[in-house]
Amino acid sequence: MFSGKARAYTNIALIKYWGKENQELIIPMNNSLSLTLDAFYTETTVIFSEELTEDRFYLDNQLQDPKATLNVSRFLDLVRQKADCSLYATVKSQNFVPTAAGLASSASGLAALAGAASAALNLALSPAELSRLARRGSGSACRSIYGGFAEWQKGTSDETSYAVEVPSNGFEDELSMLFVVVNDAQKDISSRDGMQRTVETSAFYDGWLQTVPQDLQKAKQAIAERNFAALGEVTEASALKMHGTTLAANPPFTYWSAESMLAMNLVRQIRTAGIPCYFTMDAGPNVKILVERKNEAMVQAALAEHFAPQQLILAHAGPKIEILSKEDA
Amino acid sequence: MFSGKARAYTNIALIKYWGKENQELIIPMNNSLSLTLDAFYTETTVIFSEELTEDRFYLDNQLQDPKATLNVSRFLDLVRQKADCSLYATVKSQNFVPTAAGLASSASGLAALAGAASAALNLALSPAELSRLARRGSGSACRSIYGGFAEWQKGTSDETSYAVEVPSNGFEDELSMLFVVVNDAQKDISSRDGMQRTVETSAFYDGWLQTVPQDLQKAKQAIAERNFAALGEVTEASALKMHGTTLAANPPFTYWSAESMLAMNLVRQIRTAGIPCYFTMDAGPNVKILVERKNEAMVQAALAEHFAPQQLILAHAGPKIEILSKEDA
Repeated sequence: MFSGKARAYTNIALIKYWGKENQELIIPMNNSLSLTLDAFYTETTVIFSEELTEDRFYLDNQLQDPKATLNVSRFLDLVRQKADCSLYATVKSQNFVPTAAGLASSASGLAALAGAASAALNLALSPAELSRLARRGSGSACRSIYGGFAEWQKGTSDETSYAVEVPSNGFEDELSMLFVVVNDAQKDISSRDGMQRTVETSAFYDGWLQTVPQDLQKAKQAIAERNFAALGEVTEASALKMHGTTLAANPPFTYWSAESMLAMNLVRQIRTAGIPCYFTMDAGPNVKILVERKNEAMVQAALAEHFAPQQLILAHAGPKIEILSKEDA
Repeated sequence: MFSGKARAYTNIALIKYWGKENQELIIPMNNSLSLTLDAFYTETTVIFSEELTEDRFYLDNQLQDPKATLNVSRFLDLVRQKADCSLYATVKSQNFVPTAAGLASSASGLAALAGAASAALNLALSPAELSRLARRGSGSACRSIYGGFAEWQKGTSDETSYAVEVPSNGFEDELSMLFVVVNDAQKDISSRDGMQRTVETSAFYDGWLQTVPQDLQKAKQAIAERNFAALGEVTEASALKMHGTTLAANPPFTYWSAESMLAMNLVRQIRTAGIPCYFTMDAGPNVKILVERKNEAMVQAALAEHFAPQQLILAHAGPKIEILSKEDA
């Protein structure tokens, strides 16, 4: 019996990942840059055992259906192959999310699974190798190997596509991210389907790809110079561009709801009133507000005039993935 | 003394005009296609007189300030030049708009001014010549010369840029447009400034231009075939693309408010529920819903659950410009 347990934190892209060059290997069309957060994380235990005749997957103490289990099994196959192991496993995952608002993240989930499974089978992976492995489970998971800022370098192959730390000299500790959890969600188009439709049909996708390198450069320079306004501006611009691409897809679609729009426009108003803060959004209607830690209370109070307390969740920079235990028995 | 009076109706573009190739002559970057509407119109009287020492401009019975008057004077200069006339004029314009919700339109205003001034000075312009003249006042005004559907053919010069009627065999009489007047307007970026910033800085502008010809073709085919769903789909797609371009401008901006988003998402829901209807938006937060006349009451009732009665204004296809009187004395 071989077991491992890991905790990984979710991350939010400031420069967005939007589109795959290779669907199966999950090699992206563009580099992305993220901030790992402390408020949302997953703890996963993987136990490989000779007594099992199939993989079993428990999420938040619930045994999952065959479809969800198959996804986990396919990922475990990659790890088993690396370790030359043919044992089935029990996987127990726990998502730690402040509310039940659907904020569970595949980034923290797949990073924790990669960490726990590779620890169980004694793979002794470097951070880059672990990032590569996590990427195969869920693209954005490759960034959750690191704390603070991480850049997913798209590379050109399975070997060369992984995330690295972005030197920041602790700048991330000055930042907060306020999550605005939106109630009036539209029917979802998954991140995976949305980006694929955009790559294949959007008249704006070329424009997106052409501007990512300069946005990435701006973000890294802003981090190096501890320039919050510059980082915020390029963060907001990257999110707006990503969401703009969906409006030229065929058929067009959007992840924005009326409450998303309200939150975004409130951020603009608060900024105009003199408090620097900037929004980002992912493939869903929630809005995330990047603000300096010293101003977080003011921004939270301004949002609290329009949103209920349980809709506002404050996060700060989170640590890298942690291997909590491993055991051979 | 030479006087003329004209009434012109506003129009809403289904395939949007977005960007100028020539700022001064108002030659657009792309063709556009519109529906002229009955609910919003302007009546304008122009009286050229030897007794005046300057132009005077009354809008809704209020004498206008020098800046607004200068715009009218510059336009009158074009007409005076054509007519070899050096007289100053009194211009009296009345906007007929169902509410005070800021729906006065430069399209109907400048078309009516072009019609009244050219009638007063006996210019006897053809529709194409009148369209060219109106274009110099406000780009979209060139489409308000016609009733029903009109296409502004961008051309390449002052002489070749004007609107023409789109053959429709009366299809426009089956259509309604429901205006949703939104209360929570953001601070405005004018249509003129917004399109200019987009042309100059948006990474998506090339993608916009590349897809207009096929959208225009789809719209004209849908009109010819009386295919409401096809016309609605390309109308909504054109609006979303136009608004998508602003999200990649530098700095990015949007005309959308939370209420705009609510109205757009309601249209999607009503459509999913089986009633075909489609939205469009211009350089402001109001939403306009294209629906078949036979379904207008159902769509209006569905919107009335979320918007006040005075926020909903129903319009139908409007007639071409009318010369109401002319007199030489």
